[in-house]
Amino acid sequence: MILTVTLNAALDITYTVPSLVPGTTHRVQEVSERAGGKGINVARVLHQLSLPVLATGFAGGLPLGDLPHSFVPLSASSRRTVTVVDDGGATLLNEPGPAVSSAEWQRFVDHFRLLAREATVVVLSGSLPPGVPVDAYTQLVSTVDCLTVVDTSGVALSHAVSARPDVVKPNADELREVTGHRSPQAGAAALMHDGARAVVASLGPEGLLAMTGTESWQLAPPGALAGNPTGAGDACVAGIAAGLHAGATWPAILREAVALSAAAVLHPVAGGYDPDAYEQLRAKLPDARKALR
Amino acid sequence: MILTVTLNAALDITYTVPSLVPGTTHRVQEVSERAGGKGINVARVLHQLSLPVLATGFAGGLPLGDLPHSFVPLSASSRRTVTVVDDGGATLLNEPGPAVSSAEWQRFVDHFRLLAREATVVVLSGSLPPGVPVDAYTQLVSTVDCLTVVDTSGVALSHAVSARPDVVKPNADELREVTGHRSPQAGAAALMHDGARAVVASLGPEGLLAMTGTESWQLAPPGALAGNPTGAGDACVAGIAAGLHAGATWPAILREAVALSAAAVLHPVAGGYDPDAYEQLRAKLPDARKALR
Repeated sequence: MILTVTLNAALDITYTVPSLVPGTTHRVQEVSERAGGKGINVARVLHQLSLPVLATGFAGGLPLGDLPHSFVPLSASSRRTVTVVDDGGATLLNEPGPAVSSAEWQRFVDHFRLLAREATVVVLSGSLPPGVPVDAYTQLVSTVDCLTVVDTSGVALSHAVSARPDVVKPNADELREVTGHRSPQAGAAALMHDGARAVVASLGPEGLLAMTGTESWQLAPPGALAGNPTGAGDACVAGIAAGLHAGATWPAILREAVALSAAAVLHPVAGGYDPDAYEQLRAKLPDARKALR
Repeated sequence: MILTVTLNAALDITYTVPSLVPGTTHRVQEVSERAGGKGINVARVLHQLSLPVLATGFAGGLPLGDLPHSFVPLSASSRRTVTVVDDGGATLLNEPGPAVSSAEWQRFVDHFRLLAREATVVVLSGSLPPGVPVDAYTQLVSTVDCLTVVDTSGVALSHAVSARPDVVKPNADELREVTGHRSPQAGAAALMHDGARAVVASLGPEGLLAMTGTESWQLAPPGALAGNPTGAGDACVAGIAAGLHAGATWPAILREAVALSAAAVLHPVAGGYDPDAYEQLRAKLPDARKALR
């Protein structure tokens, strides 16, 4: 089973209006809401792939539908994000969310340890909510025996690598912010030096760069993709987790991750992918090529 | 006991951001939420006045705190309103809300009938949610023996007057929209002709015009008020309901209603009033003067 962790889950609300005009009143024409958060998106993609998955983390009152989950409840409701979609694009309003108490954090660590016993791969995704220790991912990675994938940024990422996770997946901006290196190769090497066993950097249209202890690989999608890039990173992480779960080689892992993230761009909502595009891309993609170290 | 009815209650969420810029992402600095809806605001003012009050209507998961209430639950959650406050003012996003089924409406009518047996005054406030019959207020007013106050607009108001409510309280715009008359006097007379037993029209800085079967009264606040006019109409209705509950004369009712609505403008949040300003205004206000018919 693949266990995904979302410590900072949210209720994602989307409003559709003709035009958002500050200072005026809008009658919202269409409301949609779903449980959001990077680890939940990863779990949705894995669930759509029919892989055994369980989503955990903190949640208060989130609509999780048929997604297998075992969250630790919070005394307050989960934070909300409001996205207002109009003709001009999307406007986001992100709540800070309730603080997690130290008792709630300890309860989660115990719960996580039990769940992780059944896991082949643990995926730790996203930012840390207020109240959770900054080395939360270090603590969680250290506590398990299975494979671990970390997708976070900033100080949470800096701390996480010291626990020697099997894969960290920053994007180009996150890599530069955390390591100070402009080149993804140099940034990935710095994270390896700090403890990561492998780094998969997502470089947008240039695809993925994977750096392992001994080798580097690169694989790009076949061309420019028009669609919704939100959630492409989560689909990429789902591809990596699926590959690790299956014991695949790095070239096979990258193929899966690139195909899934491209198919996620073609899907309108984060946490899903276009299954036809996925199958086509998977068949069409070349093998990952070795990159220079 | 004064019974207030809010058929279209909402969860009012307020976000504070430095500046709302369409097409960008905002980290919300401050989140506040409360149960909203005109009848709930009226009940809050009456509760703050220490009068016996009970709030009813439809609600799903609203935080009502210590406000005495007996709502009929909805299968879905109540609608939300999101107000984004920035340096430039307030931007509102109002959800349409879930439709009420005919079984839910019938359940409410039965519940309301029971509660209204204990009421001296019933206050019916606000718009009708989808699924509720357009003559909802006509049905509710017809079913009770106590005094009734209706504060609504459009077709809901047109229908309501035919049930001969004791007071209807439109503002100047609502009065003009429903009757077609530009003069408040002529508009109020038209509503009386259609069945209202009394009309209290709220005319902004010009205060209140009350038209009863035999007389007309007018009373204005002492001067221009700077503050938040949202909720002033609800405080006015609370003043009318309080006066009817106490068996007060029309001049006394108007004094209470003008003092409360002015004190509500001086209060930052709808559904409350500034108690010091209320006491001062009450003492300072002249007697309502007879208006020409």
